[in-house]
Amino acid sequence: MKKLFNYLRLTFFTLPFLAMQQDKPLRVVFFGDSITQQGVSEKGYITQLRSMLDAKGLGNQYELMGAGIGGNKVYDLYLRIEDDVLAKKPDVVFVYVGINDVWHKRSHGTGTDLDKYVKFYEAIIKKLKDNNIRPILCTPSVIGERMDYSNEQDGDLNLYAAKIRDLAKKHSLGLVDLRAEFQAYLEKNNTNNDERGILTTDRVHLNETGNTFLAEKMMAALLQK
Amino acid sequence: MKKLFNYLRLTFFTLPFLAMQQDKPLRVVFFGDSITQQGVSEKGYITQLRSMLDAKGLGNQYELMGAGIGGNKVYDLYLRIEDDVLAKKPDVVFVYVGINDVWHKRSHGTGTDLDKYVKFYEAIIKKLKDNNIRPILCTPSVIGERMDYSNEQDGDLNLYAAKIRDLAKKHSLGLVDLRAEFQAYLEKNNTNNDERGILTTDRVHLNETGNTFLAEKMMAALLQK
Amino acid sequence: MKKLFNYLRLTFFTLPFLAMQQDKPLRVVFFGDSITQQGVSEKGYITQLRSMLDAKGLGNQYELMGAGIGGNKVYDLYLRIEDDVLAKKPDVVFVYVGINDVWHKRSHGTGTDLDKYVKFYEAIIKKLKDNNIRPILCTPSVIGERMDYSNEQDGDLNLYAAKIRDLAKKHSLGLVDLRAEFQAYLEKNNTNNDERGILTTDRVHLNETGNTFLAEKMMAALLQK
Amino acid sequence: MKKLFNYLRLTFFTLPFLAMQQDKPLRVVFFGDSITQQGVSEKGYITQLRSMLDAKGLGNQYELMGAGIGGNKVYDLYLRIEDDVLAKKPDVVFVYVGINDVWHKRSHGTGTDLDKYVKFYEAIIKKLKDNNIRPILCTPSVIGERMDYSNEQDGDLNLYAAKIRDLAKKHSLGLVDLRAEFQAYLEKNNTNNDERGILTTDRVHLNETGNTFLAEKMMAALLQK
Repeated sequence: MKKLFNYLRLTFFTLPFLAMQQDKPLRVVFFGDSITQQGVSEKGYITQLRSMLDAKGLGNQYELMGAGIGGNKVYDLYLRIEDDVLAKKPDVVFVYVGINDVWHKRSHGTGTDLDKYVKFYEAIIKKLKDNNIRPILCTPSVIGERMDYSNEQDGDLNLYAAKIRDLAKKHSLGLVDLRAEFQAYLEKNNTNNDERGILTTDRVHLNETGNTFLAEKMMAALLQK
Repeated sequence: MKKLFNYLRLTFFTLPFLAMQQDKPLRVVFFGDSITQQGVSEKGYITQLRSMLDAKGLGNQYELMGAGIGGNKVYDLYLRIEDDVLAKKPDVVFVYVGINDVWHKRSHGTGTDLDKYVKFYEAIIKKLKDNNIRPILCTPSVIGERMDYSNEQDGDLNLYAAKIRDLAKKHSLGLVDLRAEFQAYLEKNNTNNDERGILTTDRVHLNETGNTFLAEKMMAALLQK
Repeated sequence: MKKLFNYLRLTFFTLPFLAMQQDKPLRVVFFGDSITQQGVSEKGYITQLRSMLDAKGLGNQYELMGAGIGGNKVYDLYLRIEDDVLAKKPDVVFVYVGINDVWHKRSHGTGTDLDKYVKFYEAIIKKLKDNNIRPILCTPSVIGERMDYSNEQDGDLNLYAAKIRDLAKKHSLGLVDLRAEFQAYLEKNNTNNDERGILTTDRVHLNETGNTFLAEKMMAALLQK
Repeated sequence: MKKLFNYLRLTFFTLPFLAMQQDKPLRVVFFGDSITQQGVSEKGYITQLRSMLDAKGLGNQYELMGAGIGGNKVYDLYLRIEDDVLAKKPDVVFVYVGINDVWHKRSHGTGTDLDKYVKFYEAIIKKLKDNNIRPILCTPSVIGERMDYSNEQDGDLNLYAAKIRDLAKKHSLGLVDLRAEFQAYLEKNNTNNDERGILTTDRVHLNETGNTFLAEKMMAALLQK
């Protein structure tokens, strides 16, 4: 008898809540560059994150969408935020950009000045907040996996990452400090001081381990409300 | 008798119009980089243009304002157009930007990709037209005055200038083709193939002759309604 | 009788000479970068030049050898001249280098300063002349085939090419002015102002037409003693 | 008696040796870039080192000579080693080069590839050893004094410095590990994480404290025979 009562109570209180959640899962957009573009592939970090949430029985509470385009820098995100993010009416947006802003200084001569990086980044934050969207910021991960700060762009990546940390603090936003997380992982696991092959295939883009690593960090930030 | 009538008619119709013009001169903003920032100095091209208009008795019909900041690239103009241009409610805006977009590729690694240059440039044009402001476009002049296309950035300047010409045509806008004008002048006058000293002091910034040359080209475009 | 005598005299004097030439053909080394490395492939310019000489019946008078390595700049040639050129004891060496010296400024940040380019180039000339080898200089061809000087490196290529012309004059050396030859060809044949596909596959490396074009220019310089 | 004998023996054997040393002081050349060029100024590190040696009563045992030229990279040293170093017939040469090899990648597009840096560096070592000169190698100090590896060139400087350490080990040469020494000093003393002003005036060139610091490190290496 008590069991039945409990069952009813469970049904009574839980069903409407579940129903509501099923009607409207949290919509999450990952906004970034080629790493995020690859994030929706079979072993990509967004795909893996979806599986992780499913395994936790949270799959129906989150709708994950990729919005990554290869080669994008901060102002590319700015230029396409209406079409590719706001139009999707997300609740949460992970902003993960900066590697090309630094890298393209060398490879194309068209990287982004630090002060402009911050300006456009803040313009993105503003647009998201003006639309009641919660931004979660990510520091740029790596260009080269050597763990002794001898990758060519390490200096700049550290500098740009520091600015993202400042922005997260200034605007009280969630932060996935990928730069620090990758560095900590590589110090432990890259004993040969290799340039690639631990979390990346090519110094930048993630191998399966890297995508898993990223998915775990993203999930932690997503569940930490 | 008919002559008198004509005179009266002329007076009758014209005076109010002139009066109106005197009440409200055409407000012209020069929007650009360090060359324009220096344009308001004693011998600068904006100052010289004002004198030229005065000499033609047109001084009270034009109000000239400088809005140049050193080091600016196209997206710097974009980021400050509201504060520095729209707020001044101009009728005409000369857009003169591109040298740093090309030059900073080499000097800072933070030049502007050609496609982004066009995107931000068109965003500027749109903002001006949306505010009923007439844009007049200027092609980037020179980085180095050698006349045989052996200045390091000549290739890129030619490429970016071609895009400005396309934009002027596409949007039916006035164009001051400084790149072509400078080249033509230098082919005639730079017989030693010097790098500087003909129209510039330092390969980029204008000497007095250069400022006069620029003022003349700007005036021609301004008077050509 | 006189005719017979003449015939005999001809035989007498000429045959040993021809024999000598057949015994010891002129040894020609092509010293350069990836374009020259590809020059020894099936359709490469060195291979084509060999066929052209054969077709003229001059095949046994010339021994052609490639010494090109991808990515080489002037000081790479300098560093390997003993092993890769002098050790082969050539009579003539085509020096064809400069594209990477200019290109790597943008792509790797490790191009060659103009003054160092000249210094190492002259050190190469000196080593060749000290070994009684005749250098033939080549100006750098193209990085991009647009014919209106709107390829990004056109300015620098024109500048470096001018220095090679000066060096050829200063040291009284043969010159293959590839830069001027390509430009003239492209002005006539690149009516769409395309970036590639006329003489190159990828803006730099030669397609079959380009290799034929190069072989012709090299042959003209080689036969002009 | 034995004591007296020992004293005499010491006198007998040592005095002539000291006399010889006084007759012919050790000739030391500092071979490098603008930092070394400034090293011979009034407060420069070479000048300070001379005073330090004087204060130790060792002034007449060392003859110090500067051979620094602003903007020099490793192949500039290579190109002028005969005239500027070998001609002076030194006993010891401090080789302190690498900052411009890294820096000019960004500022001029003409930095030095790591593998060429090593090749020319080894060619310099060889020329010194072939002339019975003892090379002492120095790792490149800093471009920017931030102590958290957020100076733009930190990655590359760490990489190039590691190669110098390898070269010193491989050739069994003295090493002044300026990179490590500066980093250790800055970690302690640059509590504001400033970009300049601790040991440098402008992120690269040394202030008086920096010159003193350098002189001390150089002296330690010089006296350690």
